[in-house]
Amino acid sequence: MHVLILGGDGYLGWPTAMYFSKRGYDVTVVDNYLRRNNCTAIDVGMLYPVPTLQARAKLWYEKTGREIKVVIGDLTDAELMRSLFDGRVTYSWAVNDEFTGVPETVIHYAEQPSAPFSLIDYKTANLTVSNNLLVTNNLMFALKDLSPDTHVVHIGTMGEYGTPNIDIEEGWIDIEHKGRQDRFLFPRQAGSLYHTTKVMDTDLIWFCVRMWGLRVTNLMQGPVYGLETHETEGDERLYPIFNYDEVFGTIVNRFITQAVVGYPLTVYGRGGQTRGYLNINDTLQCVGKSVETPAKAGEFRIFNQIMETFTALELAEFTQRVGANLGYDVQIDHLDNPRKEAEEHYYNPTYQGLIDIGVEPHYLTDEVMAGMFRVVERYRGNIRKDVIFRGVKW
Amino acid sequence: MHVLILGGDGYLGWPTAMYFSKRGYDVTVVDNYLRRNNCTAIDVGMLYPVPTLQARAKLWYEKTGREIKVVIGDLTDAELMRSLFDGRVTYSWAVNDEFTGVPETVIHYAEQPSAPFSLIDYKTANLTVSNNLLVTNNLMFALKDLSPDTHVVHIGTMGEYGTPNIDIEEGWIDIEHKGRQDRFLFPRQAGSLYHTTKVMDTDLIWFCVRMWGLRVTNLMQGPVYGLETHETEGDERLYPIFNYDEVFGTIVNRFITQAVVGYPLTVYGRGGQTRGYLNINDTLQCVGKSVETPAKAGEFRIFNQIMETFTALELAEFTQRVGANLGYDVQIDHLDNPRKEAEEHYYNPTYQGLIDIGVEPHYLTDEVMAGMFRVVERYRGNIRKDVIFRGVKW
Repeated sequence: MHVLILGGDGYLGWPTAMYFSKRGYDVTVVDNYLRRNNCTAIDVGMLYPVPTLQARAKLWYEKTGREIKVVIGDLTDAELMRSLFDGRVTYSWAVNDEFTGVPETVIHYAEQPSAPFSLIDYKTANLTVSNNLLVTNNLMFALKDLSPDTHVVHIGTMGEYGTPNIDIEEGWIDIEHKGRQDRFLFPRQAGSLYHTTKVMDTDLIWFCVRMWGLRVTNLMQGPVYGLETHETEGDERLYPIFNYDEVFGTIVNRFITQAVVGYPLTVYGRGGQTRGYLNINDTLQCVGKSVETPAKAGEFRIFNQIMETFTALELAEFTQRVGANLGYDVQIDHLDNPRKEAEEHYYNPTYQGLIDIGVEPHYLTDEVMAGMFRVVERYRGNIRKDVIFRGVKW
Repeated sequence: MHVLILGGDGYLGWPTAMYFSKRGYDVTVVDNYLRRNNCTAIDVGMLYPVPTLQARAKLWYEKTGREIKVVIGDLTDAELMRSLFDGRVTYSWAVNDEFTGVPETVIHYAEQPSAPFSLIDYKTANLTVSNNLLVTNNLMFALKDLSPDTHVVHIGTMGEYGTPNIDIEEGWIDIEHKGRQDRFLFPRQAGSLYHTTKVMDTDLIWFCVRMWGLRVTNLMQGPVYGLETHETEGDERLYPIFNYDEVFGTIVNRFITQAVVGYPLTVYGRGGQTRGYLNINDTLQCVGKSVETPAKAGEFRIFNQIMETFTALELAEFTQRVGANLGYDVQIDHLDNPRKEAEEHYYNPTYQGLIDIGVEPHYLTDEVMAGMFRVVERYRGNIRKDVIFRGVKW
């Protein structure tokens, strides 16, 4: 079974590649280093240096004897996308240059994933819209023309739903209106431009699934935390990209880093913003189970991919408590909220579908967070305080 | 009052420019001739040759003494878009090269408007997604940064709603779910990629309105018919672009052209597809009234812009009857439907908002259609039968 991973260099892409490679799948990863280049462009460092995708694939091969083929290129180029299905692809790194064959599964992470980055200015906005929509569109048309039976696992986001005043269902809702009824995509109104591009992805994918009977699973993921996955086995050269800055870092990762260098935790406003969260290892489990039990032809299957919910202030207090046990005096700062968002709101999402296909949830415990502290501490000397908060406003 | 028209060369753009110019507004039009170039690329001719935008603006000036400033350029270029608001613009034609000033109103027609064109192949699909979303995004960010108080009239489409099994409201719906309620955009699931880009436009515009208090009116327009507007005053050099082919022609315009050359009317399948229609002069009236009564700051005002509904078969029979009175023997052909769409469906849209702000509907009468026949007859010699049906499938 051949798994093609679009966006294979990112925080989740590389761990996903190792996850499937370890389990005996043929794996190809594609990336154009957009995430790294954007980090460089706005001068935010990572917690530790991460080898290139080619170098990591080589390391993985040396350690495990398993090949992850690497393609470096821009998937907004439709011809590159199509080459991954028709065999005209050129590998940037591979043990064996022969085409693996048409992928049975595509995991699509190849999007500009940062809300603040999408709103730095009109140029980053344009880049986000252009990259995210064109990659998705190129993928849909490549499937239609070259491999309609391939199962796509696309990473959506819980942020598509925003914070509605009704319970959030898993992707769909039955609406009764003036005595008639129909089933629709659950209403979506997101809180950032990045999240809005994912809403637009959903519209686009649903059109293509409906027209051509494609098979797509959409994983509406919450913010992910964590550093190591089971496949890194303690080898830091295989760790994922880890950002601790406001633009590319996710909240738990940021708070732990801030705690370690004595930077007050940056809670926006009152901190009542509630979101669903999950451990990076559970992301891999969710993607894995989705691949094992693919969507049917013509099915746009949507799962809410979170394991538990917290408010921003609860996460800050969690970090403070765990930090205190490790000897840190962690302060919490309530900043003027740089974003336009509700600081107190109703939030009641359903998240049962992934459990129904066999995912076993793991939770954020004191022990899990203490483990993250211990890894971050090792890189304390790399942490630049000046990149932690930039105050990107919208 | 300065009205900026994006997509000023198109079927509706140029008539809109004359409409506002005649009423004393300062008018600037922008276009990159995308529509004409796409017609050339797929070799579909127009009913009559249409002078360039520069030439038409010159003609208009000679006839009326009124200046319509012309900018030729691609609005997916954010810098060009911003130049229209900050005065760095260069005109391709103008009587007076001085910047008119920040527009109080922007009318946004600058989108690839054909459903079949969007689905010819992956390249036209990509062009449609890229053009439509980037122009809208550039406009939103130019407004945010340079002129948040400018009122935008954006042309949406009734096609965004598709054919749901519930009554179609004007843009919004109150949903009650498990004992709680909230107000959302009316569910949208469109029947073509082009129409899906308009759904995506709606998501994007609503995000920007919500975040930055912009003022936007979205006109959910049905297919338009007609040739002459009141401002052409019989001068054919001022007629709008008129396509009679399957790709760029709208249904009434196509049927009349087919009737005139004895080409059986191309009804897809059973012909029960119901849509809302309007006369090109009513489009101008709707846009005009919307401009006179702008949306408030932070308001995303949505109107359904149709005057009456017909099934495809009803329009064919209408054309047959009017044609017969003029001496034409009009045949109707039920083709295998090249599209994936419901041929019989529930369809009950509301369209009251525009009437409430003063629009007076005109209807498709035998007389109106006969008038269109008489214009089309004059150009009978230009009609190429080979472009009428191409069978673009999806």
